[in-house]
Amino acid sequence: MNIPRTSFPRVVIIGGGFAGISLAKKLSKKEVQVVLLDKNNYHTFQPLLYQVSTGGLEPDSIAYPIRKILKDFPNFIFRLANVEQIDAEKKKIITDIGTLKYDYLVIASGSETNYFGNKEIEAHSMAMKTIPQSLNLRSLILENFEEALLTTDLIERNALMNFVIVGGGPTGVELAGALAEIKKGILPKDYPDLDTRLVQINVIQSSDCILKGMSAQASAKAEDFLEKLGVNIWKNIRVTNYDGKTVTTNTDLTFETATLIWAAGVKGATIKGLDAGDFVTRSNRLLVNEFSQVKGYDDIFAVGDVASMVSPEFPDGLPMMAQPAIQQGKQLGENLLKLIENKPMVPFVYNDKGAMATIGRNKAVVDLPKIRFQGVFAWYVWMFVHLFFLIGFRNRMVVFINWVYNYIRFDREARLIIRPYKKKHRIQ
Amino acid sequence: MNIPRTSFPRVVIIGGGFAGISLAKKLSKKEVQVVLLDKNNYHTFQPLLYQVSTGGLEPDSIAYPIRKILKDFPNFIFRLANVEQIDAEKKKIITDIGTLKYDYLVIASGSETNYFGNKEIEAHSMAMKTIPQSLNLRSLILENFEEALLTTDLIERNALMNFVIVGGGPTGVELAGALAEIKKGILPKDYPDLDTRLVQINVIQSSDCILKGMSAQASAKAEDFLEKLGVNIWKNIRVTNYDGKTVTTNTDLTFETATLIWAAGVKGATIKGLDAGDFVTRSNRLLVNEFSQVKGYDDIFAVGDVASMVSPEFPDGLPMMAQPAIQQGKQLGENLLKLIENKPMVPFVYNDKGAMATIGRNKAVVDLPKIRFQGVFAWYVWMFVHLFFLIGFRNRMVVFINWVYNYIRFDREARLIIRPYKKKHRIQ
Repeated sequence: MNIPRTSFPRVVIIGGGFAGISLAKKLSKKEVQVVLLDKNNYHTFQPLLYQVSTGGLEPDSIAYPIRKILKDFPNFIFRLANVEQIDAEKKKIITDIGTLKYDYLVIASGSETNYFGNKEIEAHSMAMKTIPQSLNLRSLILENFEEALLTTDLIERNALMNFVIVGGGPTGVELAGALAEIKKGILPKDYPDLDTRLVQINVIQSSDCILKGMSAQASAKAEDFLEKLGVNIWKNIRVTNYDGKTVTTNTDLTFETATLIWAAGVKGATIKGLDAGDFVTRSNRLLVNEFSQVKGYDDIFAVGDVASMVSPEFPDGLPMMAQPAIQQGKQLGENLLKLIENKPMVPFVYNDKGAMATIGRNKAVVDLPKIRFQGVFAWYVWMFVHLFFLIGFRNRMVVFINWVYNYIRFDREARLIIRPYKKKHRIQ
Repeated sequence: MNIPRTSFPRVVIIGGGFAGISLAKKLSKKEVQVVLLDKNNYHTFQPLLYQVSTGGLEPDSIAYPIRKILKDFPNFIFRLANVEQIDAEKKKIITDIGTLKYDYLVIASGSETNYFGNKEIEAHSMAMKTIPQSLNLRSLILENFEEALLTTDLIERNALMNFVIVGGGPTGVELAGALAEIKKGILPKDYPDLDTRLVQINVIQSSDCILKGMSAQASAKAEDFLEKLGVNIWKNIRVTNYDGKTVTTNTDLTFETATLIWAAGVKGATIKGLDAGDFVTRSNRLLVNEFSQVKGYDDIFAVGDVASMVSPEFPDGLPMMAQPAIQQGKQLGENLLKLIENKPMVPFVYNDKGAMATIGRNKAVVDLPKIRFQGVFAWYVWMFVHLFFLIGFRNRMVVFINWVYNYIRFDREARLIIRPYKKKHRIQ
């Protein structure tokens, strides 16, 4: 990679997610050369991906060009690259656009869908971790209804209108809520010649409650909200397989469906060369100390989802969410500058700001450190917080207008099949 | 196709563009069964496709779900289908989702890019007639700059930063203007380590003026605007080939470029079974009479780009633009109702409302029937007219906000490579 050396030490950041970007911001205008690599030229605001899938938002509204974030930072270099391997001994990384030496390496590569080794589920199910995946799901949902119109086979039609979401975490719950709103508000108008009352939305959760990371109160209320919206919640059931038609579980229960959305787990997106050893956890995250240093390395750091920072309160590492990533990125930025100046680094302390999830129109659950609440006010708080954390004034404005419009009109206009997912019939 | 017959006569409309939609609206709540078929589930506002390509607008803002347009119309049926053949004798059409009988057939299938038989240009160039094509072009432009950063080969770098637009019609001119604005306002900030002054924008026009359909005054002024923006205009030159690297012309002039945008011509998108005969013109349009009836048929009509309605003023048929399509669609709606009631149909009279084109920030040319003007005021008129004709309140609001934002900030935020066009390096 033809990146000239400067007199400053070089920090290479892999990944422009919440952790990578907040770290980069801290290093702006400092005496370091920063090279940020990402396989996309944009930052994705992952918490709203489910709205892209359900036609409520446009993909560009929740993405932001990384070059634009960095444009006022001197000594910053961005490259669109896929990092293939880390060579810790020679202090270099190997990418699809060449190799690059580093002085300090920060792995902020995030997480990826965890299929727990089941190749068949991986091949047939839909995930929702990236914008292209979310657009594929949007296309598939709409294509299903178009196809349901065409078939006279009732079993096939029901399978096309049956949505099975595996995993009752925030992703699964928010997607289920949005689908339920679509069933109620949009489908009867868009498909007058289809009995859309037969649309089913199923959420399958392996443990005994949904939104496991939140309070019991939030979990119970979310379940209540979903059930009122007509969503079927199946608890203490584990999905064992999906062949593209039938979902089997560890019980007698099976589901016939054309759409399985796999939101049952994520794992750290580790990189070859640093993906095996005692520093890799069961969920494929890199064990880091309180300075985000990967166990056994002084010059390699990990932040965000890919990092597992263990504390008495979080024996399995901090949750894989935006807040720990943002806070770790910021702290590491300060610590790297200290390290370069040979000053002692400051240990990371997680400031738990709480968690929230929305379940369709007017309904959300919010757990703050000192207070918990659910319902309409929680929903406003949810919207405000998401608008606040979205990057960019234009994105905030456009999302705000979409939400106001969707709220007033009970509508989601982005129900467009821009790129068909099933290429069977269609031509472009 | 399992569409039940009603007691009303059945009108089948192929295509949900300007012509098809305006016809459909006229037939709403009348005593006809209307089946509208389109290969997309959305209507595309084609005049703004170049803004999608250049990151100024999001694709969803210029598309509108067809089902939503039709949702309050009883007796309307929409199907996502690709029409493969017309069997005029048996009064039926054959599609990828089955066959369908009609009483009246309206072909509103629009136009497609005309490569005039050159397969090599077709294989290597970019078109801008559909949303997926426009997104591909957006991705390619951005990927070119990312690649230009990586190469040390100066000739390759220049080819990556050289944009050749073939065709000086509205599409070519508006795209060239937008690219010139990007070169000036965005590239130097986004690519500080690239000498973006070397970016070249070339427009090649086979005749002696650009915007041929407009007044000489508009054409001259548009040329002036483009030249001030640094766009090279090559007139009286015909492109003879493009092998993916070198553009050859009918003169000694050649261009080395990684991006050829083909905006040099369109042709009618005729359908098998009705694509040959004396009723098909040189530009592959269907000759129709003043009632939009395809020559030789009483029950088959064509409207919009695919129809060639010849008059003394327009010996080659009406221009392939939005206005003739909208007006023909409306008129045909009224005439079909008359025909069904055995009343005489009213001949179509084209109301020429003029033409306009924008050339970057603050600059446009407008030809109205009684007045011609260019410059800032023309630009405001251009924006107002385009906002007005865009379907949907939400789309208008979102486009308006994007434009205001882009204007104030000299910015285009949708510069995202959501789906890479060249899949060489990247993974999704």
